[in-house]
Amino acid sequence: MSVTTKATIASFGGKLLKLSHAATSTGCEMSFNLYLPPQAVQNSSQKVPVLIYLSGLTCTADNCSEKGFFQQGASKKGIAVLYPDTSPRGLDIPGENDAWDFGTGAGFYVDATKEPYKGGYNMYTYVTEELPKTVFAAFPQLDESRVSITGHSMGGHGALTLFLRNPGKYKSVSAFAPISNPINCPWGQKAFGGYFGEDQTKWKEHDATELVKQWKGSLPVLIDVGTGDNFYKQGQLLPEHFEKAATEAGVEGLQVRYQADYDHSYYTIATFSDDHIEHAAQYLFA
Amino acid sequence: MSVTTKATIASFGGKLLKLSHAATSTGCEMSFNLYLPPQAVQNSSQKVPVLIYLSGLTCTADNCSEKGFFQQGASKKGIAVLYPDTSPRGLDIPGENDAWDFGTGAGFYVDATKEPYKGGYNMYTYVTEELPKTVFAAFPQLDESRVSITGHSMGGHGALTLFLRNPGKYKSVSAFAPISNPINCPWGQKAFGGYFGEDQTKWKEHDATELVKQWKGSLPVLIDVGTGDNFYKQGQLLPEHFEKAATEAGVEGLQVRYQADYDHSYYTIATFSDDHIEHAAQYLFA
Repeated sequence: MSVTTKATIASFGGKLLKLSHAATSTGCEMSFNLYLPPQAVQNSSQKVPVLIYLSGLTCTADNCSEKGFFQQGASKKGIAVLYPDTSPRGLDIPGENDAWDFGTGAGFYVDATKEPYKGGYNMYTYVTEELPKTVFAAFPQLDESRVSITGHSMGGHGALTLFLRNPGKYKSVSAFAPISNPINCPWGQKAFGGYFGEDQTKWKEHDATELVKQWKGSLPVLIDVGTGDNFYKQGQLLPEHFEKAATEAGVEGLQVRYQADYDHSYYTIATFSDDHIEHAAQYLFA
Repeated sequence: MSVTTKATIASFGGKLLKLSHAATSTGCEMSFNLYLPPQAVQNSSQKVPVLIYLSGLTCTADNCSEKGFFQQGASKKGIAVLYPDTSPRGLDIPGENDAWDFGTGAGFYVDATKEPYKGGYNMYTYVTEELPKTVFAAFPQLDESRVSITGHSMGGHGALTLFLRNPGKYKSVSAFAPISNPINCPWGQKAFGGYFGEDQTKWKEHDATELVKQWKGSLPVLIDVGTGDNFYKQGQLLPEHFEKAATEAGVEGLQVRYQADYDHSYYTIATFSDDHIEHAAQYLFA
């Protein structure tokens, strides 16, 4: 449970910590970043809530820390931001480094059931259980009763599915350019085939569009998708499938914004990060 | 004078353009970035002012575009941001790629007088004359009568010296962690020795601390230096020399802020970029 601090960086009045720990769920040392807003750095009896940001394919915890600009809004609101890594690293599984959209950097926030990924590629358990447990033990100034989740692309898939699979666990959810229907897009089919094998019932358990069909009540999710996003145009994201499934299931409260010309990059995340912080804050400080 | 557009990226309601042009002053194709705020993208009869951001050692125009977070404030205020490169590229001068603090990526915003850098390493002329001329010709929505300048580290040196050598050319100046007295620090001595040779009178013409001794009137410059900046601690920046010289010369208006714990990275620039946009806006919209 002990956490190693690799760097402490001043940012927007708070501290960005580069951390790592020996994770049992993934069987390796896992790096992650944690932004502590000023309110969590100063001595205070008031605990701060946490926003988990799940990154997309190929990313580490650093990409969004450097380019996503969540720190500014998080500093103003008094929200900590937790940036997990996107997969185990260095397990030396044959083939895990062969592609940028599968294996290393592409854990898809699922627990693999197929060999050779079974055993180590447990990013679902890691992000929903082990990492928060570790972080809340190490940082008592964080409030484990107030956690929201967001993410980008593969991480947007992660945010939506972790939220939908765990009612009540997260106060709110939002996503940037999420892979919204992985069972029907090339990225998702490759990942789920590789991590789960051919059993499609397992695939559906981690597909936001399938999951929202079972959702009861309102779902106040904020989703931004850029119309200039090549992966959107190629049918990797399919946010319309998610919207349609939600509408047909009578789920209300979705806010899907199609942002003219915006692409799949961190420039888009930076532009709208304040809106996603604001969205989370509504629920974290309700 | 023609400009090639390599990419157009939506950012904070405006467009970040990745551009290049065949530069005569450096004898090579030069890349640069230009952020057009919404006010300059929409059809408007109102021209927008320009803030030039000069990057530090090893950087291209991309680093600050991705991590510096100027676009947010520039979008709000209606200021274009021009990001030049830091040196000529690909001149094939023997030795120019041997070190990270000299040659490629380290032009120091001077016109070299020593062989083999003489002829191509003319970043002073490039940034003060050729690039603005090219940009204002290509983008008539920019107001060439309202230009401010800022920069980081080597680029902070560039901002201060270009401002001090050209009274009236720029409406305002600011800097992050500037190399403030290059003739007395290892980076500056290496660069000036390599670009100018041993004649120290030439060195002094490009040293902010020497130049400020001759300044008449007030100098409303904003400088941020992090106390956790290793290069500051190693004596590469020497902002105190600049402050002392200004004070002894009776120059008023300097605002040098020592920011506790902040380092030399883009996290620091991102944190304080809004303040530098605000500083420039005071003069650009005066």
